[in-house]
Amino acid sequence: MSATETRIPVTLIPGDGIGPECVTAARRIVEATGAPIDWEDAEAGAEVFKKGIASGVPQETMDSIARTRVALKGPLETPVGFGEKSANVTLRKLFETYANVRPVRELPGVVTPYSGRGVDLVMVRENVEDLYAGIEYMQTPSVAQALKLISVKGSEKISRFAFEYARSEGRTSVACATKANIMKFSEGTLKRVFERVAPDYPEIESWHVIVDNCAHQLVKRPEQFEVICTTNMNGDILSDLSSALVGGLGYAPSANIGNEVAIFEAVHGSAPKYAGKNVINPTAVILSSVLMLRYLGLFEEAASIEHAIFVTMESGVLTGDVLGYDRGTPTTEYTDSIIGNLGKRTEGWTIREVKPLELPVLSSAPDYVRPTSRNVVGLDVFVESPLTADELGASLTELAAGTRLELKMISSRGTKVYPPIGAMTETGDHFRCRFIIRENPGDLWDEDVHQLLARVSRRHMWMHIEKLQEFDGELGFTRDQGEN
Amino acid sequence: MSATETRIPVTLIPGDGIGPECVTAARRIVEATGAPIDWEDAEAGAEVFKKGIASGVPQETMDSIARTRVALKGPLETPVGFGEKSANVTLRKLFETYANVRPVRELPGVVTPYSGRGVDLVMVRENVEDLYAGIEYMQTPSVAQALKLISVKGSEKISRFAFEYARSEGRTSVACATKANIMKFSEGTLKRVFERVAPDYPEIESWHVIVDNCAHQLVKRPEQFEVICTTNMNGDILSDLSSALVGGLGYAPSANIGNEVAIFEAVHGSAPKYAGKNVINPTAVILSSVLMLRYLGLFEEAASIEHAIFVTMESGVLTGDVLGYDRGTPTTEYTDSIIGNLGKRTEGWTIREVKPLELPVLSSAPDYVRPTSRNVVGLDVFVESPLTADELGASLTELAAGTRLELKMISSRGTKVYPPIGAMTETGDHFRCRFIIRENPGDLWDEDVHQLLARVSRRHMWMHIEKLQEFDGELGFTRDQGEN
Repeated sequence: MSATETRIPVTLIPGDGIGPECVTAARRIVEATGAPIDWEDAEAGAEVFKKGIASGVPQETMDSIARTRVALKGPLETPVGFGEKSANVTLRKLFETYANVRPVRELPGVVTPYSGRGVDLVMVRENVEDLYAGIEYMQTPSVAQALKLISVKGSEKISRFAFEYARSEGRTSVACATKANIMKFSEGTLKRVFERVAPDYPEIESWHVIVDNCAHQLVKRPEQFEVICTTNMNGDILSDLSSALVGGLGYAPSANIGNEVAIFEAVHGSAPKYAGKNVINPTAVILSSVLMLRYLGLFEEAASIEHAIFVTMESGVLTGDVLGYDRGTPTTEYTDSIIGNLGKRTEGWTIREVKPLELPVLSSAPDYVRPTSRNVVGLDVFVESPLTADELGASLTELAAGTRLELKMISSRGTKVYPPIGAMTETGDHFRCRFIIRENPGDLWDEDVHQLLARVSRRHMWMHIEKLQEFDGELGFTRDQGEN
Repeated sequence: MSATETRIPVTLIPGDGIGPECVTAARRIVEATGAPIDWEDAEAGAEVFKKGIASGVPQETMDSIARTRVALKGPLETPVGFGEKSANVTLRKLFETYANVRPVRELPGVVTPYSGRGVDLVMVRENVEDLYAGIEYMQTPSVAQALKLISVKGSEKISRFAFEYARSEGRTSVACATKANIMKFSEGTLKRVFERVAPDYPEIESWHVIVDNCAHQLVKRPEQFEVICTTNMNGDILSDLSSALVGGLGYAPSANIGNEVAIFEAVHGSAPKYAGKNVINPTAVILSSVLMLRYLGLFEEAASIEHAIFVTMESGVLTGDVLGYDRGTPTTEYTDSIIGNLGKRTEGWTIREVKPLELPVLSSAPDYVRPTSRNVVGLDVFVESPLTADELGASLTELAAGTRLELKMISSRGTKVYPPIGAMTETGDHFRCRFIIRENPGDLWDEDVHQLLARVSRRHMWMHIEKLQEFDGELGFTRDQGEN
């Protein structure tokens, strides 16, 4: 492909702080390989927030990425506090880059407690669902709620992606890390879907590991992992854990890949205190550009850069983050050195032969899972109340009299407090009140729900309602601690 | 206190697999110190589940703990899959042991990549709130939702506990690890409350660290931490990560402490394949019993055991998990060795002088935070639909006509999809439809809500409702990706 005349447009976002230096280094190296890339400069991050654009990403940048379908970017600053969304997350979500890929590999000259053990794994993290959606509500003045949403389709996409990625790099195993033992529906969805699709990749060994044990194993014996597939929030923690095994964020590239668009970026921050001093380590963005070249099918150019990085580092040319800022090679000289080593091959380290990545193709039907039967069998009404559980229970029982629903129990943060079970649960002002249908089996109509709500509203403040559903005879809700 | 005649009753739960061997070792050692403990044997775990008790904890065990207020326990097995709750979680929640304490300390003879760096930290994890409540709903046949609930009161209890725990051990710093940058309400609550109470502990340095960076720093430079305060799910991962820094779960004690009850346990599993072979490492339960003795005010006995463990390990007496199962000291001999070393003092290692732990006392008022003003300004209606976002938007706009609410936007997993913003968001069958009040400023009444719901019900299936509230003029809900 490198011989073709076709030019490939790529959106280039320098970003904040040290971003421009990192991106410039990567761009110079990519250009030195002769890769047929046309860069489109675009803006995002702190300066954009300052202009009052709450997403941190201006329309021109959105348009550029929508056109080029590929972006290479530096770190973007996100104001901490209420209000603005992370610009990084904005880009991932708006372009539906559902797969976050974080390779973690031991590198020459970067000494860590794990040096010599050959750590070489890839974290594949779901990138658009889960708690990262940031859907939150103050339920009461003192109780906050975030929604963790996990879909079967999202889980199938990321599971298949992890297997396909393993295939493209010739890797032989994929582990799935979830907290399915506690969150049987949400985290459990990824576990079940992963186990369902695994047989489609018979040459790849696969297993499930509980996410806390995965963190433990990553510290204890990271060399056991090749590819780890996980949910968004847990993957965030596991990825940053893993990057520390091999020398930190200065060497941590990443790719955000979707069906339409791919965005390549370092995972480090904008480190403003080092900006403009020609001392920073640009390797993470350079390695991200290697991932980008492979995504674009430019395998020779990618391998050439990867070899040159390893040759450079083997020769002891390293930046200040590793050697100390008084002794490190300046950013521009480090870049020059990699360019000078293009065409050389590392002897001591293996550079993978990578094949094209096949993105999974799934049905675009919105009702991806279609049950043959469904019923509404009850209602959880979340109430803010200064009453005790007993008082609230008596009141709600009375209000529900004559409706098709009856109060089954009340819980506080997942533990049953009414009828009392002799527990020492401390209650606050936030109660979940579970009503079930009186006739069993039966199905609830919205009229029944409206009637009950109107009754509850007479005396109590509710702020949140969940229907209790059954799909194909399976309960679509969990029982509480203490509920039988 | 050890000289007193008062006997202290403690519930003793041997648990499953290797549990009985661990608990017997701890009991023998505690008894050898002359600590005035009366043990009450009690049952929980696999055998109890098999009897059909869905909590894994029989009433007699609940009664025993409610009486003694202190338990020492071995690991309990929890069936993986749908149905049963974790028996460990049951005990924590029913007795409101809101603080999980996990000391992580380098030990003599246990070689890890971190040996010699003096890792010595304590993880303080909120233990009864957060995703661990396991409140989940299938929103549609293919979208699962878990609720992450975090309260101001729970956050204040765990924050103050972390500072008090630091004080009791003479530690000088506490870090708070959250994901407040993404979940500004839920995770943000812990961050804000932690920062609010920190000045009450002026002799202790404190700071906030983003949880993924905390994982990174724990691998890179764990010796920087003394005490880490964090939420339940993230703390689960960070705790298991940390225990691997010092040699694994065989050496990881824990305490679950509440206002009324404290439960001390190892964090390792029941390891059935090693059960009954006299080869396992009982140190985690023994160290848990040291935490228990300190909680009971038996400081001399606790220090005596801790010294004896260190002396034993310094002398090279170690179990099979460290030396290999063919060469390790058998469990009973290891225990005998520790008993034989009671009264000796380690020279090479420091044993902390611990002072009584002061549990924070908070107001028991249910309405712990009382706003001076509050308004309901809108409604999020979660709808299952095979329509496109545009079709659904048009339909809901029409249905809301003539009500006090109007459709503001529709989002899919936190990203705005209607009115369209030019994003590539893939939608499924699950939409969140945000209605806001037409008059601004205004306040919504439940009648308005009932009217809108009745209209939506005419054409669409909804399964989840959230009121959009304002407290003291602050929005009690987050904006979506792409929403302005």
